[in-house]
Amino acid sequence: MTRYVYDFTDGNKDLKDLLGGKGANLAEMTLMGLPVPPGFTVTTEACRAYLRTGTMPAGLLTEVQHHLRLMQNRMGKTFGDAADPLLLSVRSGAKFSMPGMMETILDIGLNDASVVGLGRQSADQRFAWDSYRRLIQMFGKTVFDVPGEAFEEELTAARSIAGVATDPELGTTQLQDLVHAYKKVFHQHTGRDFPQAPHEQLFLAIAAVFRSWNAERAILYRRQERIPQDLGTAVNVMAMVFGNRGENSGTGVAFTRDPATGRHGVYGDYLRNAQGEDVVAGIRNAVPLAQLAAIDPASHRQLLSIMQRLEQRYRDLCDIEFTIENGRLWMLQTRVGKRTPAAAFVIAAQLVDEGRITLHEALQRVTGEQLAQLMFPSFDTTAAPPPLTTGVPASPGASVGAIVFDSAAAVAATEPVILVRRETNPDDLPGMIAAQGILTSRGGKTSHAAVVARGMGKTCVCGTEELRIDGDAVTVAGRTLHAGDIISIDGTTGNVYPGSVAVRPSAVVRYFEGELAAHGDPLLSAVERLMAHADHQARLDVHANADTAVDATRARRFGATGVGLCRTEHMFLGDRRRLVERLILAEDATARSEALQTLLPLQRADFEELFAAMDGLPVTVRLIDPPLHEFLPPLEELTARVAHAEALGVDPGHDRTLLTAVRRMHEQNPMLGLRGVRLGLVIPGLFAMQVRAIAQAAAARIAAGGDPQPEIMVPLVGAVQELETVRAEAESVLASVPGAPPIRLGTMIEVPRAALTAGQIAGVAEFFSFGTNDLTQMAWGFSRDDVEGAFFGRYLELGIFSVSPFESIDRDGVGELVRTAVRRGRAIRPDLTIGVCGEHGGDPASVRFFHDAGLDYVSCSPFRVPIARLEAGRAASAAAGSDSR
Amino acid sequence: MTRYVYDFTDGNKDLKDLLGGKGANLAEMTLMGLPVPPGFTVTTEACRAYLRTGTMPAGLLTEVQHHLRLMQNRMGKTFGDAADPLLLSVRSGAKFSMPGMMETILDIGLNDASVVGLGRQSADQRFAWDSYRRLIQMFGKTVFDVPGEAFEEELTAARSIAGVATDPELGTTQLQDLVHAYKKVFHQHTGRDFPQAPHEQLFLAIAAVFRSWNAERAILYRRQERIPQDLGTAVNVMAMVFGNRGENSGTGVAFTRDPATGRHGVYGDYLRNAQGEDVVAGIRNAVPLAQLAAIDPASHRQLLSIMQRLEQRYRDLCDIEFTIENGRLWMLQTRVGKRTPAAAFVIAAQLVDEGRITLHEALQRVTGEQLAQLMFPSFDTTAAPPPLTTGVPASPGASVGAIVFDSAAAVAATEPVILVRRETNPDDLPGMIAAQGILTSRGGKTSHAAVVARGMGKTCVCGTEELRIDGDAVTVAGRTLHAGDIISIDGTTGNVYPGSVAVRPSAVVRYFEGELAAHGDPLLSAVERLMAHADHQARLDVHANADTAVDATRARRFGATGVGLCRTEHMFLGDRRRLVERLILAEDATARSEALQTLLPLQRADFEELFAAMDGLPVTVRLIDPPLHEFLPPLEELTARVAHAEALGVDPGHDRTLLTAVRRMHEQNPMLGLRGVRLGLVIPGLFAMQVRAIAQAAAARIAAGGDPQPEIMVPLVGAVQELETVRAEAESVLASVPGAPPIRLGTMIEVPRAALTAGQIAGVAEFFSFGTNDLTQMAWGFSRDDVEGAFFGRYLELGIFSVSPFESIDRDGVGELVRTAVRRGRAIRPDLTIGVCGEHGGDPASVRFFHDAGLDYVSCSPFRVPIARLEAGRAASAAAGSDSR
Repeated sequence: MTRYVYDFTDGNKDLKDLLGGKGANLAEMTLMGLPVPPGFTVTTEACRAYLRTGTMPAGLLTEVQHHLRLMQNRMGKTFGDAADPLLLSVRSGAKFSMPGMMETILDIGLNDASVVGLGRQSADQRFAWDSYRRLIQMFGKTVFDVPGEAFEEELTAARSIAGVATDPELGTTQLQDLVHAYKKVFHQHTGRDFPQAPHEQLFLAIAAVFRSWNAERAILYRRQERIPQDLGTAVNVMAMVFGNRGENSGTGVAFTRDPATGRHGVYGDYLRNAQGEDVVAGIRNAVPLAQLAAIDPASHRQLLSIMQRLEQRYRDLCDIEFTIENGRLWMLQTRVGKRTPAAAFVIAAQLVDEGRITLHEALQRVTGEQLAQLMFPSFDTTAAPPPLTTGVPASPGASVGAIVFDSAAAVAATEPVILVRRETNPDDLPGMIAAQGILTSRGGKTSHAAVVARGMGKTCVCGTEELRIDGDAVTVAGRTLHAGDIISIDGTTGNVYPGSVAVRPSAVVRYFEGELAAHGDPLLSAVERLMAHADHQARLDVHANADTAVDATRARRFGATGVGLCRTEHMFLGDRRRLVERLILAEDATARSEALQTLLPLQRADFEELFAAMDGLPVTVRLIDPPLHEFLPPLEELTARVAHAEALGVDPGHDRTLLTAVRRMHEQNPMLGLRGVRLGLVIPGLFAMQVRAIAQAAAARIAAGGDPQPEIMVPLVGAVQELETVRAEAESVLASVPGAPPIRLGTMIEVPRAALTAGQIAGVAEFFSFGTNDLTQMAWGFSRDDVEGAFFGRYLELGIFSVSPFESIDRDGVGELVRTAVRRGRAIRPDLTIGVCGEHGGDPASVRFFHDAGLDYVSCSPFRVPIARLEAGRAASAAAGSDSR
Repeated sequence: MTRYVYDFTDGNKDLKDLLGGKGANLAEMTLMGLPVPPGFTVTTEACRAYLRTGTMPAGLLTEVQHHLRLMQNRMGKTFGDAADPLLLSVRSGAKFSMPGMMETILDIGLNDASVVGLGRQSADQRFAWDSYRRLIQMFGKTVFDVPGEAFEEELTAARSIAGVATDPELGTTQLQDLVHAYKKVFHQHTGRDFPQAPHEQLFLAIAAVFRSWNAERAILYRRQERIPQDLGTAVNVMAMVFGNRGENSGTGVAFTRDPATGRHGVYGDYLRNAQGEDVVAGIRNAVPLAQLAAIDPASHRQLLSIMQRLEQRYRDLCDIEFTIENGRLWMLQTRVGKRTPAAAFVIAAQLVDEGRITLHEALQRVTGEQLAQLMFPSFDTTAAPPPLTTGVPASPGASVGAIVFDSAAAVAATEPVILVRRETNPDDLPGMIAAQGILTSRGGKTSHAAVVARGMGKTCVCGTEELRIDGDAVTVAGRTLHAGDIISIDGTTGNVYPGSVAVRPSAVVRYFEGELAAHGDPLLSAVERLMAHADHQARLDVHANADTAVDATRARRFGATGVGLCRTEHMFLGDRRRLVERLILAEDATARSEALQTLLPLQRADFEELFAAMDGLPVTVRLIDPPLHEFLPPLEELTARVAHAEALGVDPGHDRTLLTAVRRMHEQNPMLGLRGVRLGLVIPGLFAMQVRAIAQAAAARIAAGGDPQPEIMVPLVGAVQELETVRAEAESVLASVPGAPPIRLGTMIEVPRAALTAGQIAGVAEFFSFGTNDLTQMAWGFSRDDVEGAFFGRYLELGIFSVSPFESIDRDGVGELVRTAVRRGRAIRPDLTIGVCGEHGGDPASVRFFHDAGLDYVSCSPFRVPIARLEAGRAASAAAGSDSR
């Protein structure tokens, strides 16, 4: 028969699937001989069985009773004993942490008889009756869905009758009355009396915790966090211990190292004569843990020794919760502790130095996200005033600017501004683009402002509920700010500061830029060491998306070993727009050819610079991609200008010519229009001009003693026949340029059909580069520009996305196309080079995916190159680590 | 060793892969003992070997010489004999017919000596010398790439010296001079003399035919026709026979039944004292074949008997080419003959009656395309004047209208018009939409006009080169027509008629409509019989796309067994637009809810009518799909209106409100924007209102004794979570409507991601319906509206498409998504119903694909229901046929 209950003495930390995280760690501590209150864990399997059938699985209750007897023996107390009752806590504990999502019931075992015994035994009647009323309240709400307000009303009435303002001021008699009132509420809502039988309380509580797995908010949370819905939760039943039994008692939390900086030494807080919830509620002031040495030296020594053993066992920073009951230390919880990004790097390196973990493991202890956070500039908080308020940190960064209250003002501003809005909507987009940062009073991480700002990489603090925005003023904490006043917002912490706070550039970035040495600085040394190991391990190369020599040079300093995407259309902007205009308006082949001839030397010069900057490294040049009408003024603008002129009887002149051209070229859906390879096949000479410029630039570099390694990439290919046609033209152009080196020709894989027919395409392409932005747009059928603000927030709320598929690759859909293309492409051409040059190339989770999918390189913006390098190393080392330990 | 040469006595009609179509049929006739001139076929395998290596495969020439000796024995003549030479024709013959694409060389074996012998032997010196000069010309061009103009110049000079206008007027001496001149041309361009050795001529000719497989035009043709490039061609070497040896000789072509109507009896033409090319060139008038009975009764009898045997052997209409040389009949070619659509049906039914073929086979002899052609209206040609001219039949149909010369005039016209243009471009789209038909003077089947017209299902004749369009007049055949003059154009034949020609509705359509009985009419009886068998065989059901009761009723008459797609947005047009406007402009939940409440009864009434029309059959209702701003005036129009008003200082009033709304909702790429299921998730109550209307309508029908079978279909789902959310809402609405029947809920599969994650989606969907239009748009990354005119013509020319992927499903790309979705969906839910409701559902080739992919039904426009039924039957019977014969 399946076993559903594990005593804490039966499990260990590796049984998280079965016992949940909390249960597994309690078992581990018990196994280590640490002073954990006795208890047992009801397994996730029992939960799943219960949720499937709606009844407790056969044998479960018998098992629970058996384990309860063991507890009683160990504690020398009896559950439900009227004189000195054993009380129990019943806590949920799933495999993955779901903070605040599920239920806890304390003080199980109290009833009309044992409350008296507890009062007597603890010599604290008030404590006993307060515990009892809390049990009825918690139990009523959790087990029988009694509305919380019903209890709250009685509590309010009790305070009012007693003439006090807070609950702690209620005396024993008043609490006894309150217990009476609560029992009436309980009866009214459930049609039965509050159960006096301790076993009934326990069984009902376990079942209620099981059911809480399927509470609506829990389901939603799991959808958002992509936690499987069918895991179920374990239930931990533990003997209650009390830190509020006098000055010899207390409760605390601690970390085995400093979670903020990673420095050595124990950190924590201790609160005398208090229970755990008092610490959390911040009712009284805690003291630094070191003071425990004076208060209770024996417990302090024991605690330090336990913490050392926990670190050894977990080989990582641990955090713990403990209680001292009458001088006796009890460990209530431990787990691998959270830490800041800087601490993560420093601790990982320390643990290697201490011989606790290998470099492989150290690499697994840090993430690209953490490195990314270390690369944002931050406020110099030592010089900052206290924050005005704190909102939801929705998009990281540190931005300073003058307040503006609407989009138009942001667009019109000449100085940096912060756009302050109740909430944003698509009308605010121009203002969001123009502003340094966005601050809203409503909405969370999935609000329009948050989603769009993250997409833009713009600082955003949202849901700052203390802000009162009223026309041209905003009030916060009694202070009123007006348009034009300077504020500073921190998208990493959510802090909002008055005035201009000094921005500190990231030390890590300065290190990558070569401006700071790592030696002597614990963080930079740790980064240096882990990056070196990552580079050594990585199987993925990291290239950069760079269109200019300046960008390429920076990327090289950041460790890029090639340019994976040079967008040639960026070479058509600025002054050169008028040349493109000539190309578009060309009425015959001669005019078109002349326009192309004028562009040729300009492109050639751009390429020469770029090849020089990346001398010796591959540079993948993408032929022009966007629709040509993007180089003309927008249709709406021209329409209004011409209509205005005509209404006034003025000749619109060149505007009319342009309007005609723009109308002719207008597309309902430019994203799905005449662009990419289609342009090259429809506009004679366009691709040939670009290929010639690349070949001539390479020839010139070789003549100058350089080592250019250009590659030509064709965008938006959907059918092998397109690529065949372009290849034939390109080869004949390349053959005609004296001194040009051999140049590889490949294609973007950014149209689903290209991925599906990758076998055919690989017959003609020497390399693939996934354009995951377009691939995402087409696989999902939405364009980033159009929908990010329109419904992504709603989708994140509904759990349809856990993260925007433009931020992190959608493994099931887009990922399936990537895997298919890799498999089919390599089947035909085993030495096919495969990379990715979409924005996902710099996203940590996506880099891992690309490693797993077998790509050769990722290419990302220069700034994200170190992040990709770290993740590439982590991905490779995740496998290697298990071999080499 | 591989055998490369097959004597005509060695092969048979089933060896087309190896011997090509022509060679296999010649072998079959030889096998039947018919009088085929002796000869042999060099295999496609030899061609492939030659093209791979550039040299003749080992042993080939020895084999050829061996077979040549056999021929000489049979003919009693010797190749290269100076007195009575055996002459040879060398013709290409691939597996698939490639008319005009590849090479033929006649009269191989003539040289300076044998030309004299031939002249003497035939008693026709002129004939001999003319043959010789033709050989040099053909051989020079084909084998040595001598430019054709070089020979043409000499021919022109010869005519000029002789003072004659045409080649036949050149006499023997002049032809002898011409041979001399041709030989000089040959030497100049090749640096060698014209080869006198007959064997050398033969081997070089065979190699040249091999090489012609890879001629540029042949490659392009195969790309366009999707014929594999690696098949190679066979080469047929046959003894020359001559129909121009006097009045006892002649040549002819014949059909074993009337290829126009299918009527019994032999049809053909005979031309005395002529060679085959004379018939083709139409130099002299042929006589009906029946007259051969008087001219040469023996040959006529023999021919009739042969034709009967061929029909028996091929069990189908055959066409033949024959030559009579001095009273001796020679069969030069046969094949299963081409026929009109009407003849195809009639003949197939006849052959069943005659016991020649089974009904299964008969079904394979007709196609949906043919049925489609029979369903177009046509001109009553008995009442029509002679056509003014004939162009390329680019998009079928028969249209009558007044000439207009530009798009604006077409749009402004109140009477039916024909848009007449040199060629069209995207600016002409509004005019093309407004016109009945399009007539152009330039461009072929892949021109802008042709591609767009086919996409619209609009009549189009293009490339009518005799038209001279000049401002407001068009001249043709000496006649000038002006704007406003009526013309009639036939997109099926390419004919252009002056004035209004009576349009005859299709008899087949009238039969389907129940207006004509089949009995007594050979065509309608054949259609009735084959359709009945198709329905009996079909595994695919055929549903119709119908939004109204009128459409649904028609679809039912045409044989639809359900509505596969009811587009609810069509219920929001017309007067109801203002209700949608209210919904869009609603500023709060109350206003929105009121707007929805007003729409509810209107939708309910629509559904009731529809369910009544389809009583007892499934009706799949798609929830609203298009972006809501489609119901507002276009942005450009509003912009101009507001700018105009403002320039004049007038208040634009409501226009400004609308403009603000349209701007807010404006999308760069509406196809990739807020539509489909996204609307339902973002606009509270919208889907619920529609679901309620469906449920209430169904309940009302049941109350009235009806049998409604509605299904609810959610559009544009990309992720299972979207569908889960909609399903939860729909189920709660359905549960709240008293008397509503159980209603199945499923999804469109029209986003690539839905196909890729079909396994997940099938967990929540009871049916799938492929939206292949969107699936095509997203798989290829182009929208039909934007690109069909912009580059499809160019793509068809380049062979990137052989047909627009919007007309016929792209099997490699979109098809792969369909197969994937079917496989993954059924793996999770084996009884998943799967259909298609994109326009491909009515395309014959696509129906076959959907059958093969294992779908349950196709849904198409009512008009195409019979076509889909026929193809569904053919698809099923193709497999069944091979079992049951």
